[in-house]
Amino acid sequence: MSELVSKAEKLDAADDLGGTRAEFVLDDTVYLDGNSLGALPAAVPDRVADVVRRQWGELRIRSWEESGWWTAPERIGDRIAPLVGAEPGQVVVGDSTSVNVFKALVGAVRLAGDGRDEILVDATTFPTDGYIAESAARMTGRTLRPVTPAEVPGALGDRTAAVLLNHVDYRTGRLHDLPSLTAAVHAAGAYVVWDLCHSAGALPVGLDEHGVDLAVGCTYKYLNGGPGAPAYLYVRRDLQDRFDSPLPGWNSHAEPFGMRTAYAPASGALRGRVGTPDILSMLALEAALEVWDGVSIEAVRAKSLALTDFFLECVAEYVPEGRVESLTPVAHAERGSQVALRCDDAGDVMKRLIERGVVGDFRAPDVLRFGFTPLYVGFADVERAARTLAKTLA
Amino acid sequence: MSELVSKAEKLDAADDLGGTRAEFVLDDTVYLDGNSLGALPAAVPDRVADVVRRQWGELRIRSWEESGWWTAPERIGDRIAPLVGAEPGQVVVGDSTSVNVFKALVGAVRLAGDGRDEILVDATTFPTDGYIAESAARMTGRTLRPVTPAEVPGALGDRTAAVLLNHVDYRTGRLHDLPSLTAAVHAAGAYVVWDLCHSAGALPVGLDEHGVDLAVGCTYKYLNGGPGAPAYLYVRRDLQDRFDSPLPGWNSHAEPFGMRTAYAPASGALRGRVGTPDILSMLALEAALEVWDGVSIEAVRAKSLALTDFFLECVAEYVPEGRVESLTPVAHAERGSQVALRCDDAGDVMKRLIERGVVGDFRAPDVLRFGFTPLYVGFADVERAARTLAKTLA
Repeated sequence: MSELVSKAEKLDAADDLGGTRAEFVLDDTVYLDGNSLGALPAAVPDRVADVVRRQWGELRIRSWEESGWWTAPERIGDRIAPLVGAEPGQVVVGDSTSVNVFKALVGAVRLAGDGRDEILVDATTFPTDGYIAESAARMTGRTLRPVTPAEVPGALGDRTAAVLLNHVDYRTGRLHDLPSLTAAVHAAGAYVVWDLCHSAGALPVGLDEHGVDLAVGCTYKYLNGGPGAPAYLYVRRDLQDRFDSPLPGWNSHAEPFGMRTAYAPASGALRGRVGTPDILSMLALEAALEVWDGVSIEAVRAKSLALTDFFLECVAEYVPEGRVESLTPVAHAERGSQVALRCDDAGDVMKRLIERGVVGDFRAPDVLRFGFTPLYVGFADVERAARTLAKTLA
Repeated sequence: MSELVSKAEKLDAADDLGGTRAEFVLDDTVYLDGNSLGALPAAVPDRVADVVRRQWGELRIRSWEESGWWTAPERIGDRIAPLVGAEPGQVVVGDSTSVNVFKALVGAVRLAGDGRDEILVDATTFPTDGYIAESAARMTGRTLRPVTPAEVPGALGDRTAAVLLNHVDYRTGRLHDLPSLTAAVHAAGAYVVWDLCHSAGALPVGLDEHGVDLAVGCTYKYLNGGPGAPAYLYVRRDLQDRFDSPLPGWNSHAEPFGMRTAYAPASGALRGRVGTPDILSMLALEAALEVWDGVSIEAVRAKSLALTDFFLECVAEYVPEGRVESLTPVAHAERGSQVALRCDDAGDVMKRLIERGVVGDFRAPDVLRFGFTPLYVGFADVERAARTLAKTLA
């Protein structure tokens, strides 16, 4: 045991990202649930207090202009953009991930045109994407076909309008090959929508580089935006003029205060807006994103892999063989920023683990899920988590 | 002039709702824009600080259960319910008004069944309702027909699936006859969706009493929930089991944490939920709604009418005849809680009026809009607003 403790010490001492931990509000809990709800960035409370007391309480309606409320969805989108490899003007923040999946997938089907009647959806997806895809298919008169990401290349064809995929599997932590899957979808003449909920803020995404068409993601996991913080929508610049949203609210009108009877969509990313943005949640997210100033997503990815490697090493050392089974791929190219361990009594184990100060989460029926946020998780945390897990499993 | 000043004093002295003003953060501005963004309730800042610092910062993921985050959409819906005349279990909070219009109108069309191919929409509606209605019609294969509320009875027929109406016109402040229009829609075998943005919190709505099918509304006007606070959806209890949402997110699943591939809708109001609720905005709204404890909506309505009557009286006294034209009906039964005055230079007039400490808003091309929130606007405010308006118009 002491060997891994001293290894953790060395890794922490050499950690270039060790300093960002101080920008979060943390205690002595080992918090490995940042892939569900990111920890509170220290800058958020004062910012939110200012938004409530001064911007709303004193300036009131004037804040739509004077405090930059009206333009927040695009402005904050541009802060997220570099984290997912996008040039400015292509990401807009607002609504929930589910609502954005609906916009993106219906938009993708419409881009593909009338001749293509099938939507492929990741059969292993987080459930909401599947439910929304079913509604999108029903409402656009397409057939929905669930396939695993590995089956996508074989399933693509002339009938394929759009494909909805997850970058990282929420359950297993498996990272899918965004560049090659995107290229395969394009080779078939179809459009791809990527769900980045479990990758954005944990690893490089490269939306522009790989020519992704549309993407969505939440902001309350690795982006630490707060509970239920608004999600975002990416529409590649050259597709924006043809993007035809199924939710054309007044906020995406070319002249929102013109009060026109006829809808005329705005240009650019803001075509993805719908109704009035939820300012309190949105400006909390804006403050939360400041922790990324000067942080490279490549450095985050390197540390993330080192953390999950080290966790798997500690688990192998501390936990008797066969007691748990890792669902997370060993190969770095196939791993996100979480480790999923399967065991029959996972629900009970996680409950007791949390009581012992190590917070992960349980995904029914049998998965222990541990998320590693490189901005605030260190190697000593990882060692302690594995050691506590071993005790709990004993 | 002094006669109206002393009348204002008397009216304020006799005002049963005069005490609620102290529950808001106000200054010496006359704030007549609560029909756009309600003033800050004094209880909100500390509540939001607690949500951020303790619930998110300390309890983190545990707050979904321990702080009641998960059930907030229904719980807060039940706080709004009595204000719109609904028994508990029929209102759910979340998403923007535009998104809720989409859910409600598509849901109404589906309730009506395949045999009815037309949607009627209020031709004088706030634009977003019209845009969303167009999308709902397109995506359900129905024809959209814009008609004024007055034309609705004559336009109803066997083809009518659903009708989308505003309770109070955002521009003129005209109150439409919800009971009789609802009855007419029902007599034609169709379903009605009411948009309550400009009536909820200002006057009794009586959703249950009048048998309304579905309704939506925002919470940042007369309900003072804060900028972009989440909207709400009402689905009448006996329709809930047949309500078929076009946005079936994981939050409306019968077993949201079962992670099922197949969608199975929950029972009750929560069937209207979609994705993860935006907790900061939502719990600010919950604190804001506490000002309604012990307040009767009938008393609010009585004061609202007294305020708008007095404003029209002061304007008639102070402003030279013909300089402005009131678009707001004189009859109480046709008046919401705002007064809209038309004049060619409205944009410029409102700008100067705001500089003089009287805040209303301008709606293009030529409308001065003044909203009267009975919880914090008094009769002396009204007199001062009219007097300052007269000076500005001179």
